[in-house]
Amino acid sequence: MVVEANTVRFDSLSLDGGATLAPVEVAYETYGRLNAHKTNAILVLHAFSGDAHAAGISHETGKPGWWDNMIGPGKAFDTDRYLVICTNVLGGCRGTTGPSSVNPETGCPYAMTFPVITIGDMVRLQKMLIDWFGIERLLTVTGGSMGGMQALKWAVDYPEQVVSAIPIASTTRHSAQQIAFNEVGRQAIMADPDWNGGDYYGKQPPARGLAVARMVGHITYMSDESMREKFGRRLRDKETFGFGFDVDFEVESYLRYRGSQFVNRFDANSYLYITKAMDYFDLTEGQGTLSSVLERAQARFLVISFSSDWLYPSYQSQEMVRALRSRNQDVAYVELQSNYGHDSFLVDVAEQAELVRGFLASTFERAQ
Amino acid sequence: MVVEANTVRFDSLSLDGGATLAPVEVAYETYGRLNAHKTNAILVLHAFSGDAHAAGISHETGKPGWWDNMIGPGKAFDTDRYLVICTNVLGGCRGTTGPSSVNPETGCPYAMTFPVITIGDMVRLQKMLIDWFGIERLLTVTGGSMGGMQALKWAVDYPEQVVSAIPIASTTRHSAQQIAFNEVGRQAIMADPDWNGGDYYGKQPPARGLAVARMVGHITYMSDESMREKFGRRLRDKETFGFGFDVDFEVESYLRYRGSQFVNRFDANSYLYITKAMDYFDLTEGQGTLSSVLERAQARFLVISFSSDWLYPSYQSQEMVRALRSRNQDVAYVELQSNYGHDSFLVDVAEQAELVRGFLASTFERAQ
Repeated sequence: MVVEANTVRFDSLSLDGGATLAPVEVAYETYGRLNAHKTNAILVLHAFSGDAHAAGISHETGKPGWWDNMIGPGKAFDTDRYLVICTNVLGGCRGTTGPSSVNPETGCPYAMTFPVITIGDMVRLQKMLIDWFGIERLLTVTGGSMGGMQALKWAVDYPEQVVSAIPIASTTRHSAQQIAFNEVGRQAIMADPDWNGGDYYGKQPPARGLAVARMVGHITYMSDESMREKFGRRLRDKETFGFGFDVDFEVESYLRYRGSQFVNRFDANSYLYITKAMDYFDLTEGQGTLSSVLERAQARFLVISFSSDWLYPSYQSQEMVRALRSRNQDVAYVELQSNYGHDSFLVDVAEQAELVRGFLASTFERAQ
Repeated sequence: MVVEANTVRFDSLSLDGGATLAPVEVAYETYGRLNAHKTNAILVLHAFSGDAHAAGISHETGKPGWWDNMIGPGKAFDTDRYLVICTNVLGGCRGTTGPSSVNPETGCPYAMTFPVITIGDMVRLQKMLIDWFGIERLLTVTGGSMGGMQALKWAVDYPEQVVSAIPIASTTRHSAQQIAFNEVGRQAIMADPDWNGGDYYGKQPPARGLAVARMVGHITYMSDESMREKFGRRLRDKETFGFGFDVDFEVESYLRYRGSQFVNRFDANSYLYITKAMDYFDLTEGQGTLSSVLERAQARFLVISFSSDWLYPSYQSQEMVRALRSRNQDVAYVELQSNYGHDSFLVDVAEQAELVRGFLASTFERAQ
């Protein structure tokens, strides 16, 4: 299934911070077909470094989508039955307006003049796209990690448009530790002289800082156990220690490679803006209890977390589940056993797929 | 108790990597007095960023030692009863020979021409100092984190000189995750143009890279829970989000402060060399099983780990305990409940102090 991203332009988008983006573009891909009553649309929301290419083979890059193991004919998000839509988030660098986009007022990239954005802003832009499609109700909104935050925000902000929500490996607000890891990444980028206050477009980007930020990210996405299984203390390309500062261990080689690869596909300023949006995220926004805010949602919920995910630990999912149950909302919760840490929702999907498949089928049936 | 560091110079030290350092200096502090039979000496070994100033108030800086809550008159390491010795490790930057020391052959700092060192090299230098003191047997060797690695190495390499060993929050070898976090710190330093291949002495040091490295370190030393208790999502000096890239959250402010402070007291090249020594550390050195290697030790062991320490998780301490028990060696093990993560051995010491006090008393009695 070869797929292509499309882009829609809207006149303007008002942001939580008070600014207005005008115009604003959103990149998206779709898989499957909308049914006659428009009741089978699913919005898939990506995590921090994802993009609109969630499934199929990209016409542009030849690569499979980031959730291709979950989306497709006969898969959990069955494109024979459902229309799946995925967008690149606001602030991103893969087709949707972000800091690398040209500011029409200046003719130059926004860079750090791009307004600070929130998860709510991302969702508001997605809402414009869904309205543009003429879809009145989404069968489900779903995503892992930051995608789960967007799903929660959708359910609370647009209760009448969301039939169900599946937040996976996610949270209702970033903890001090999550903020801290993001802050380290931002500091690594901003410490790179090539960052140059964000004005590096057309010049040397802050590749070293961005690579270090990504390395930190990768460690937090894996678990101690999955790293041990994948790398152990195996040496790289040699029998004994070389005693030096070249790569000694396979894990070092892997991190350096992943760090350097990331530079080719991701914009450092998007890193700053999107991590800040995650850190600001608090579903309650200081207004009332989590229960009272979640009570606005009319959706059924399927909440999934993973036993070895220490970045978005299960207790964060359990907090949202407790809040939902306290108001008798319809919520199913499963903590899946997996060794893959936070990455589990991307790589260890067999059980997750079964849960999603069943939940979607029953939700679809009820909604008809 | 105002204390001062002393330094001893030795003609040369042979290193595991094949090189020889000549001369080599080691900085140390002592607290308490050696008894007539020289049976009451305790060697305290510091963690990654520590130094010889373990207790009392430094004459130089006016600051208390890093384990002042454990060492002193009437404390766990009771200086009314024992002589406590602490040295700065080889490769360090607080008085002991390291990459910032002047290479006598060139008259310039070693920088990256400093030979790669191991935990075994650190211990070999400490052994020279203990011999210089004329101390034939150490009542105990102890330390947390990297200090525990040195304690284990002492017990295995100099079995007849070590009556007991207390490795705390430590491991017999670095895991892939531990190597990965160290590698991120090294990459952050080496990505800073001011690092300049290590040649920054007398110039601008790689302050930004070192600060980022330290920030990563601090997150790993704390626990999710201790960060939540200490910072939560509290905002820094403002009532509402400023929506920007200045400091928003207290945890960001703390990390930036700790990162920038570290630059004033620690040498970036020492960071590289010491973290590499930790990563190379494998008590077995690929020779035989952990049990067979630990069997060389004649010491009694007290092994301590902390429930919330995710950087040096309890399973690593339990591995050494199992290996010791499998050969009927004398070992007591306690996992202490604490919320402070890896920092627990430094900050949450009440129970640890009681364990150490009792263990030392019975060891001292038996040894007379």
